[in-house]
Amino acid sequence: MASEQEFRAGERAVTPPEPNDAALTFIGRIRTPWMSKKETPRQGRLDGPECQIEILPLWLPALQGLEAYEFVEVLYWLHLSRRDLVLQSPKDGTVRGTFAMRSPVRPNPIGTSKVRLLGIEGNILRVQGLDCLDGTPLIDLKPDRCRFSPLGDVPDNAQSPD
Amino acid sequence: MASEQEFRAGERAVTPPEPNDAALTFIGRIRTPWMSKKETPRQGRLDGPECQIEILPLWLPALQGLEAYEFVEVLYWLHLSRRDLVLQSPKDGTVRGTFAMRSPVRPNPIGTSKVRLLGIEGNILRVQGLDCLDGTPLIDLKPDRCRFSPLGDVPDNAQSPD
Repeated sequence: MASEQEFRAGERAVTPPEPNDAALTFIGRIRTPWMSKKETPRQGRLDGPECQIEILPLWLPALQGLEAYEFVEVLYWLHLSRRDLVLQSPKDGTVRGTFAMRSPVRPNPIGTSKVRLLGIEGNILRVQGLDCLDGTPLIDLKPDRCRFSPLGDVPDNAQSPD
Repeated sequence: MASEQEFRAGERAVTPPEPNDAALTFIGRIRTPWMSKKETPRQGRLDGPECQIEILPLWLPALQGLEAYEFVEVLYWLHLSRRDLVLQSPKDGTVRGTFAMRSPVRPNPIGTSKVRLLGIEGNILRVQGLDCLDGTPLIDLKPDRCRFSPLGDVPDNAQSPD
């Protein structure tokens, strides 16, 4: 796929090894209002449009207790992204290393977002704060690390990561 | 591996599908002072001990520009974790869903940390804030989403995720 794509000035690709160090299972799918890369925001906003996260039925019991959290960290697979660029040029014309950007193009195209949890109904989470295409595969959900304890149950080190 | 491990009261496992939806390539390795699960902290602290992140030489150019950031998001593969628990019981005796915890045990055992970047020398990053075992495989590095622009270059939506 990489060969079909164009380079901007200053961009550089490498030939990465076959990705076979670990394997993922998709645990659900994300529904957003964005149907093309062009209209997808560069970063989510906690006051952005409501999106849905659909969990596969197998994993439903794993949601138990998540409703107590206001903010959830979401990991998803950026399934349309090439994986071989080490230098990238955003629209502003600068050239930067892939690890100095939150671009979807990276060796392991995993996106992370902090979302506001509006509600859970069955296997559907309603959230705000996403920035990915409709249909993006879901990898993981966890309480956001900045507030990882439910109200009224704050462990000693709850504030440490900030 | 799951059958060799014990359950605590209230814990529940499922039989997950073979993880073959996407594949990861390890891009480096993390060096920490923690050699066993027992001594590894439950969550990193930004004033914790200095750790090293070693990048494979192939990806070295992708670090360009990362030195401008004070906080970096690190994704790593929790290589010793089972993947089949939907309900878990932490030491406090409660039972919670896997997605309501930041436990390393999860369908896709990926850990995320926000670290303070102390310096980069060659392919080694010196950081504070990690909470993983020595030797943990590295998956990704990106500027932390809370402060994702270098000083002096703040886009319009820089503050949106908070």
